[in-house]
Amino acid sequence: MTRERLYLFDTTLRDGAQTPGVDFSVEDKIAIAGLVERLGIDYLEGGWPGANPTDTEFFAEKRTRKAHFTAFGMTKRAGRSLSNDPGLAAVLDSPADTVCLVAKSWDFHVTVALGTTLDENLAGIRESVEAIVSRGKEAMIDCEHFFDGYKANRDYAIACASAACEAGARWIVLCDTNGGTLPDEIEAIVRDVADHVPGERLGIHAHDDTGNAIANSLAAVRAGVRQVQGTLNGLGERCGNANLITLIPTLKLKAPYVHLFETGTDDEALAQITHVSRAFDELLNRAPARQAPYVGEAAFATKAGLHASAILKDPATYEHVAPETVGNRRRVLVSDQAGRSNMLAELERLGIEVQRDDPRVGQLLDEVKRREAEGWAYEAADASFDLLARRTLGKVPEFFRIESFRVLVERRYNAIGELVTVSEATVKVTVDGETLISVGEGNGPVNALDQALRKDLGRFQRYIDDTELADFKVRILNGGTGATTRVLIESRDGAGIRWSTVGVSPNIVDASFQALVDSITWKLMKAGAAPARVPGRSPEMTG
Amino acid sequence: MTRERLYLFDTTLRDGAQTPGVDFSVEDKIAIAGLVERLGIDYLEGGWPGANPTDTEFFAEKRTRKAHFTAFGMTKRAGRSLSNDPGLAAVLDSPADTVCLVAKSWDFHVTVALGTTLDENLAGIRESVEAIVSRGKEAMIDCEHFFDGYKANRDYAIACASAACEAGARWIVLCDTNGGTLPDEIEAIVRDVADHVPGERLGIHAHDDTGNAIANSLAAVRAGVRQVQGTLNGLGERCGNANLITLIPTLKLKAPYVHLFETGTDDEALAQITHVSRAFDELLNRAPARQAPYVGEAAFATKAGLHASAILKDPATYEHVAPETVGNRRRVLVSDQAGRSNMLAELERLGIEVQRDDPRVGQLLDEVKRREAEGWAYEAADASFDLLARRTLGKVPEFFRIESFRVLVERRYNAIGELVTVSEATVKVTVDGETLISVGEGNGPVNALDQALRKDLGRFQRYIDDTELADFKVRILNGGTGATTRVLIESRDGAGIRWSTVGVSPNIVDASFQALVDSITWKLMKAGAAPARVPGRSPEMTG
Repeated sequence: MTRERLYLFDTTLRDGAQTPGVDFSVEDKIAIAGLVERLGIDYLEGGWPGANPTDTEFFAEKRTRKAHFTAFGMTKRAGRSLSNDPGLAAVLDSPADTVCLVAKSWDFHVTVALGTTLDENLAGIRESVEAIVSRGKEAMIDCEHFFDGYKANRDYAIACASAACEAGARWIVLCDTNGGTLPDEIEAIVRDVADHVPGERLGIHAHDDTGNAIANSLAAVRAGVRQVQGTLNGLGERCGNANLITLIPTLKLKAPYVHLFETGTDDEALAQITHVSRAFDELLNRAPARQAPYVGEAAFATKAGLHASAILKDPATYEHVAPETVGNRRRVLVSDQAGRSNMLAELERLGIEVQRDDPRVGQLLDEVKRREAEGWAYEAADASFDLLARRTLGKVPEFFRIESFRVLVERRYNAIGELVTVSEATVKVTVDGETLISVGEGNGPVNALDQALRKDLGRFQRYIDDTELADFKVRILNGGTGATTRVLIESRDGAGIRWSTVGVSPNIVDASFQALVDSITWKLMKAGAAPARVPGRSPEMTG
Repeated sequence: MTRERLYLFDTTLRDGAQTPGVDFSVEDKIAIAGLVERLGIDYLEGGWPGANPTDTEFFAEKRTRKAHFTAFGMTKRAGRSLSNDPGLAAVLDSPADTVCLVAKSWDFHVTVALGTTLDENLAGIRESVEAIVSRGKEAMIDCEHFFDGYKANRDYAIACASAACEAGARWIVLCDTNGGTLPDEIEAIVRDVADHVPGERLGIHAHDDTGNAIANSLAAVRAGVRQVQGTLNGLGERCGNANLITLIPTLKLKAPYVHLFETGTDDEALAQITHVSRAFDELLNRAPARQAPYVGEAAFATKAGLHASAILKDPATYEHVAPETVGNRRRVLVSDQAGRSNMLAELERLGIEVQRDDPRVGQLLDEVKRREAEGWAYEAADASFDLLARRTLGKVPEFFRIESFRVLVERRYNAIGELVTVSEATVKVTVDGETLISVGEGNGPVNALDQALRKDLGRFQRYIDDTELADFKVRILNGGTGATTRVLIESRDGAGIRWSTVGVSPNIVDASFQALVDSITWKLMKAGAAPARVPGRSPEMTG
């Protein structure tokens, strides 16, 4: 059977940017575009060029490799000519492959919010689509409030969709803007619309205000649409958009969808979806939802004693899909054997040689489990994992030893009555039996520590002179200032190599320092620096 | 039109207790039962008496006022007589009104997991139901793996449901135990089953493994079931159960359900659902999901400038239900997209009186924009916004003045060779012209500052004694340790009131301190504390 093509459209960078508390920089947007492309999603909506400085800068160049780079904007304003609409011009002039313009399709909004006539609105849709097409770009129209509009005035809502279609829009997207439509209504309305606009040109844009964004998207697909819009981890205005991280596995793995449709997401991309979801949360600096479908830490976890033993006998009868297909894993008293083979694969990837039956592999497995339970996150800190693995296997030389550190932060009025805050750090290090003391100042305690630590490492200095901190993330693991703090540090050297390290402690300064020391140690190890001539005292404080 | 009765069944205390990381005490269970009853839910499943000490103690007495107090257990074991099944006896002997027993309905599980014959399993179901009924209790059977069982052997799955029905079970609950069934399958299968067992005796138990628990429950209702199971805030094994907090408003407010069905939840109970959801998160000691349908802080929030002005004109056309009906509220987010009318609406909500044309409203708008550009996030820090607005309008009294603070973090070997990290903070405060110096120790610099600051605020002490930090979030705004740090603090007082404050500085300690000072100042203002008798020097350092 030939499967039809189903297109996926990501609006994380546009509708997702409406999420309360979310604020993307241009660098964030570039990183997120990379995640979206890893999933093989067909369209990346990057934002609204001309609407704000971030989006304008993001659209300064084409930001996708394979996905259609899509700019969002509004259809032509009523009462203006096309040539006199600078907002539209900014979108048309952008390097986007596809232009998606939002159009009103609810009669009430046309007359009240736009203050124009129903016919003028239809003309505006047509002219806007023609303008896109004449610029050689693919045209897409978001029919705002489509379902509410349909219920208020069916014929006018359909007329808006038809106008866009006839003018040459590749896609007409039916938007449940207020998010209140239920799946059976969506299915019935889409079936009716598909009698007027071919389903292969229809899309669905669902919101989760009744917890039905996924079901609404699937209902629309069953009724004929061939494009589904959503966001990574369901970001979006109010309760969020349809979550592509949930939708994609269902479309790829479940009947009838898997038999009917082909998507841009291949099996390899699907196996990365758990990683992509978590990397995105990392970028948002928030804890991944443990109970998220398919990708959550608990999605394949069993606590029930009743199920736990049975699941090990025959997982397939207790799991609706195999966790590996989505890059997740089963969590039931993880069989030592399964954990062990994962670990061996990981060590091989890092180039760490070890015999398959070395008992230290089991020790490392236990150590990682113990530490992850305490809050360490080795998935996001490759270099720290590399060091931990080599240390457990006895393969990390000692380079230097930290004797002590001290950080002082003081806020006070200075002599001329200004408020000043001073941060100063002192670090005492031993290299080859020689004690080196350095002091650093910084704009905060971690910066001061970093300055002090890098100031004088004796003969190792030349290896670290070109390294710098590229990113620094703090996560409070269980609320309150008395909680555990996890610090992730990304470092970068002159050759552009990046590596990540982690530190965990109730004390944020302590956690930061652990990650800083790991960062320098990893760099020295990779650079092949000669180990210390006098071995150190405590592995916790050595680099 | 007479509406049919639709019954709601809460399994927070049974399936919800399977949530990874969740562990209820008897006191928790009693408090949760109270929340469930506030919503007018018909059945409260309290757990499995006899299976563990907590559940046994919870079932020592009847714990509900109106809801059917329901005990969970297993149908009679194969190869044993009823009188020789102590597990079943514990359930039957409990003070439960209703007994719900789980039964296998997937042929594979009967033969492999139970190791019995298909006929013997049917006989066990019948005998178990008869035993419940003969004890004068209402009988309910959970058909485990019903939908997977139906797909493997339709006739046997239906035979299990029919056996329970014929033996006198009031309810036969179709369970999507693995959570992988999609809404259209649910609807088709339930329609078929309803030809053999009357719909008014069928229930649905859905899990969220594909993000369709809500849609699956609604699909089953459309197909005929008259009991819906779920949990508060969607707790439950793996990805959770159907979320009753989401389902109830849809059933109560949306067509066709509101026209077809009556539930135990009246309008007054519905208006408490936001409070119940948040109180439950409070009990679980976790932050409420901001984007939760109906009850989330963001569920009726608008950030888009495009929508914000229109929503104030006519909210009904931008909101799928009125926020008040579910006890939530509209929020037009104060952000750099905000205009003057948003600002006025927000000031009104906060109870800050100001003339529409007061020039200070424009100043406040500019100040918010300037600060948000620097990294402040007022949409996530209501209390800091409240203070900023009142300060700009000249309406915040000065309570105390911070003269200076100092924090020391030191890591070193102690006298017996152990590594120790010490954090100590000193804060100098002036209240009514009197200088108070306090020292605090903590497990990190912020904790130490918090301790020092709360230790002695003189006559204000009694107002802050019951406040504590509920959450603490750190975001590095532009990478590297030299970047700007934003700290968000959520505080909580003895009455359960929560408020959020923000601080921004390149120095994380500084940023935390600003948010701490705002938190205390807001609390003093709300408590109506008398202002300082000697006004302070600098607005940046005053509380």
